[in-house]
Amino acid sequence: MPSKVRIALDAMGGDDGAAVVIPGAAISLARHRDTEFLLVGDRARIEPELDRHPELKSVSRIVHTDVAVSGSDKPSQALRRGRKTSSMWLAIDAVKKGEADVAVSAGNTGALMAMARFHLRTLRGIDRPAISAIWPTQRGQSVVLDLGATIGGDARHLVALAVMGAAMVSVVFDKKRPTVGLLNIGTEEIKGHEEIREAGEILRAMNLPELEYIGFVEGDGIGKGVADVIVTEGYSGNIALKAAEGTARQMAELLRNEIQRSWLSKLGYLFARNAFQALRDKMDPNKSNGGVLLGLNGLVVKSHGGINAEGFAYAIDVGYEMAHYDLLNKINQMLNREGGALNSVQTAQEAVS
Amino acid sequence: MPSKVRIALDAMGGDDGAAVVIPGAAISLARHRDTEFLLVGDRARIEPELDRHPELKSVSRIVHTDVAVSGSDKPSQALRRGRKTSSMWLAIDAVKKGEADVAVSAGNTGALMAMARFHLRTLRGIDRPAISAIWPTQRGQSVVLDLGATIGGDARHLVALAVMGAAMVSVVFDKKRPTVGLLNIGTEEIKGHEEIREAGEILRAMNLPELEYIGFVEGDGIGKGVADVIVTEGYSGNIALKAAEGTARQMAELLRNEIQRSWLSKLGYLFARNAFQALRDKMDPNKSNGGVLLGLNGLVVKSHGGINAEGFAYAIDVGYEMAHYDLLNKINQMLNREGGALNSVQTAQEAVS
Repeated sequence: MPSKVRIALDAMGGDDGAAVVIPGAAISLARHRDTEFLLVGDRARIEPELDRHPELKSVSRIVHTDVAVSGSDKPSQALRRGRKTSSMWLAIDAVKKGEADVAVSAGNTGALMAMARFHLRTLRGIDRPAISAIWPTQRGQSVVLDLGATIGGDARHLVALAVMGAAMVSVVFDKKRPTVGLLNIGTEEIKGHEEIREAGEILRAMNLPELEYIGFVEGDGIGKGVADVIVTEGYSGNIALKAAEGTARQMAELLRNEIQRSWLSKLGYLFARNAFQALRDKMDPNKSNGGVLLGLNGLVVKSHGGINAEGFAYAIDVGYEMAHYDLLNKINQMLNREGGALNSVQTAQEAVS
Repeated sequence: MPSKVRIALDAMGGDDGAAVVIPGAAISLARHRDTEFLLVGDRARIEPELDRHPELKSVSRIVHTDVAVSGSDKPSQALRRGRKTSSMWLAIDAVKKGEADVAVSAGNTGALMAMARFHLRTLRGIDRPAISAIWPTQRGQSVVLDLGATIGGDARHLVALAVMGAAMVSVVFDKKRPTVGLLNIGTEEIKGHEEIREAGEILRAMNLPELEYIGFVEGDGIGKGVADVIVTEGYSGNIALKAAEGTARQMAELLRNEIQRSWLSKLGYLFARNAFQALRDKMDPNKSNGGVLLGLNGLVVKSHGGINAEGFAYAIDVGYEMAHYDLLNKINQMLNREGGALNSVQTAQEAVS
């Protein structure tokens, strides 16, 4: 690993492009001094922002392009129009070429997935990539995946997600043998989703040194923090994430409205300000910003599109951590060591069937 | 419809059985005086509770059985052991025989689904039943289904859910043409879940007089209240519900803990008490208790198992409303009128394919 963490930013991604990306980078840089940035996008937009952040400017290099993937582009359109030219592509390309350790983009998810997959290719042993993120829980934080990269998938896919998620936890939280649960619903015997049951049997049979499989977890188990890693396919993972984020926003808004209704409750709010701040700090979707694309030959982080500079800085932080702690090599080691994770799926599959 | 609403209660369902069911019934009775109860379960457990609620006693009849379905029974076990004898079965049986307008149970979901389906059978035009519930939103309340009765399902199944959900909204919220959205994830072009896209095309092509189809809704759209009815298959519906409930509980707990940390914030809490109470009232999962089993020849309501008397009373309230406003006939009318909802699915399916 190089002594500095080199981060390529898609400076045209997200609702506000450079106006959010550049100040976001400045915030993140203040937290991680050993960062260098490649700012990919329209020089005319980037430079005025950069002039306001001299420290950032001194560790940044601009890669100019005026082609941007739009939020409404379908993945196939984005690939057709933006391949080799768009800021999103060029940020990924910097990772591919080894000029950056990680790329961060707030551009549209489908396009980012498609470009990253097309250009970086999946890791050996991985058929389909995943998006993972850190989820605040009652007991701390968990890693949840897949949040929408791949819809559906067989038992082997779920096992691969478990292995990658465990690698991410061991990198981010420095845990030796993270616990892993498979997201499921309570009713045991209802027909369907044999792949989840099968994945559970395989994980149990494999008894990997890198993770401890604890069984099925229901939707409310995520927030309880019953496992370090929660594994599910991308459709239900995305639904769970958005339903939870929606509820958090709904409650915050409701409380704010109710507090505005009387001077007494406004006063109460002032007194209890620290408590509210703590709640915001912990449940703020901004602070959980930064979905890591897993399963690719290169590190890519997806930020929410409609985010402010502070929120974008958290996505950069995630990218920094993943690069700094060498996530990719750890995943690769777990996937491909002799007798390692996915090599033994076949054996385990035969043992349980 | 009879002048009184007759409700059969499984007095042995849930974690605490009669100790919660009977006081719950007393609470609900105070809100709906035109109720009569059939209390199905162990007389020795029911009578002591009933003696404390003379008004309830005067409108109740006990149907004795000492056979109970346990929370850990698998559906098939429950059917084998509890058919014709268990309190759950006999409550459903009262609906089947026309002795009750609705059955309410806090017993295990899988067993309740299996027994209700086995004994009551599905409505004409419906292959598989659903569980629906009322979800508090920023704009009021929505009906969400399926919350876990049936995993997966084709486009026709999703269309049937849309029709049943719309009927429920028109009954509960007195809306003529409720809006309906299909739960989906944002990334449009990713492979998978053709059935959701197809269901959307069918609903658009059918252009039913009973509902207005508004398109796809993401997970955070549920809490925003973007549609009166949110339709999804049972696995993702269950995950969404539990993820949202989990987040609500997590936030409430976090705020409580933070407020306990200083005397100033405790004081603030006292001042802002009304605001907190309003939040609790609106987001309390207890108050959203009561999942309605839809698609059966009879009304059955599922309560959470680990609930207190107040929470169980809400499930009874839901049962009362469904029976009082004649949900079943409305659904049947929508499903089976000449040229009605599901009759035209075939035509619409051909038109869009």
